[in-house]
Amino acid sequence: MHHTIDPVMATGFKRVGHAMADAARRETLRHFRVRGLGADNKDAAGFDPVTIADRAAEAAMCAVLAQERPDDGILGEEEGAKPGTSGLTWVLDPIDGTRGFISGTPTWGVLIALQDASGPIYGIIDQPYIAERFEGGFGVARCVGPTGETTLAVSDTRTLSEATILTTFPEVGTDAEARAFHAVAKQCKLTRYGMDCYAYALLAAGHVDLVIEAGLNAYDVAAPIAVVQAAGGIVTDWSGQPAHEGGRIIAAATPELHSAALEVISNAL
Amino acid sequence: MHHTIDPVMATGFKRVGHAMADAARRETLRHFRVRGLGADNKDAAGFDPVTIADRAAEAAMCAVLAQERPDDGILGEEEGAKPGTSGLTWVLDPIDGTRGFISGTPTWGVLIALQDASGPIYGIIDQPYIAERFEGGFGVARCVGPTGETTLAVSDTRTLSEATILTTFPEVGTDAEARAFHAVAKQCKLTRYGMDCYAYALLAAGHVDLVIEAGLNAYDVAAPIAVVQAAGGIVTDWSGQPAHEGGRIIAAATPELHSAALEVISNAL
Repeated sequence: MHHTIDPVMATGFKRVGHAMADAARRETLRHFRVRGLGADNKDAAGFDPVTIADRAAEAAMCAVLAQERPDDGILGEEEGAKPGTSGLTWVLDPIDGTRGFISGTPTWGVLIALQDASGPIYGIIDQPYIAERFEGGFGVARCVGPTGETTLAVSDTRTLSEATILTTFPEVGTDAEARAFHAVAKQCKLTRYGMDCYAYALLAAGHVDLVIEAGLNAYDVAAPIAVVQAAGGIVTDWSGQPAHEGGRIIAAATPELHSAALEVISNAL
Repeated sequence: MHHTIDPVMATGFKRVGHAMADAARRETLRHFRVRGLGADNKDAAGFDPVTIADRAAEAAMCAVLAQERPDDGILGEEEGAKPGTSGLTWVLDPIDGTRGFISGTPTWGVLIALQDASGPIYGIIDQPYIAERFEGGFGVARCVGPTGETTLAVSDTRTLSEATILTTFPEVGTDAEARAFHAVAKQCKLTRYGMDCYAYALLAAGHVDLVIEAGLNAYDVAAPIAVVQAAGGIVTDWSGQPAHEGGRIIAAATPELHSAALEVISNAL
């Protein structure tokens, strides 16, 4: 069920979204490429850094919501879930791609999504260092960046043999998930790695055609879903079902490409 | 043998280098993220796109040299070698990371190096979309980017267990080369992929500690060598010998880290 949102409300939501993105941009840039940035180890088995920048950026976004939308729920990476009473929830990832952030790469992002019971209806993918913001929902699909403003629209690529595919880690997830990804990638024209949320921005902008990932959280995927869908693309899980709870994600430029990739995945799993 | 270059000459070389980088920035940005950019297939066995942007950017840089430094040699990716009479050669890669360029990612770069018989003595790594320029040589080691100017200096990381390692492709090169890379990466704290020349810029800036690649050409590595060395780092081939002819490359923040990685490589090869 979609929440009923009129144009005046939509304008308000977009204003709040941009205010949050501006606040997170300030907080993340204060800490980006600063030497000796502390990275706590959140994951005893591996290396999942949580920096002061993550926490400061999420707190800054929550402060905007406390003032502007106190009745909405919040699902944040760092602070967890705060229930709301409006039927709407803001899903926040202050730094998607923390490993990239601490390595100085410019392809991490701030993720902000608004969702109702049906899933994400509006999203922002912001890259603070480049000063580039991808936005989708409420009739908008655009990128504002260092060379100006462009409309987001996915490519018309329909076949794997013409497709550029992206994932963040070559190991993808479990061994079976890696096999499934590489079975699809082997049929594609070009495979690229390492972009985190920026991969979905490039899909929405029509530069790549397919993003396949596994092991995502809800806050990793809500904003990308809104941006890619606003640009005309498709995002589901690997069974073709809604993906906003996270898990195994496939995002495709066209229904034909989505079907072709899903078939290869189901045969490989 | 180093060419004798006085401060006035050095200032002139830097001016010429920046003029070339400005010209290449204009030409590459005219074509970046434009839909339907033609990519010829230079490599029958794989997918090695050469775009009009590569050729236009190299031509623009050569036009600067024809006017300012007609007696210097040129070694360019697209046009090959033009011998000079001055004992100095400009080594140019108009778009390092063409696959990234045609995928819309912001981590390709324009590479410009000046070298004498001893190897690279000055280099520029320019990222036109971010408007970020890394420069090293003639007493300079700096980055000018969207958030201002910073001095480049490598990290003081001495052990693999504390190091962040980067390479462009997980497959690296031959199977043996991939094994050697992954033997090192397995001992590192964090592994990242997909940055092309930007990896060396991040090493020079102190954000990553080790870059290991194989199958590079002279024009891929000359500017990175100059920038990393100016920032206090070390670049050699996998035998510890000068690397400016290309091939198997290791770039490290410190001598200790360089030695530790070379030992793992030699045991794995």
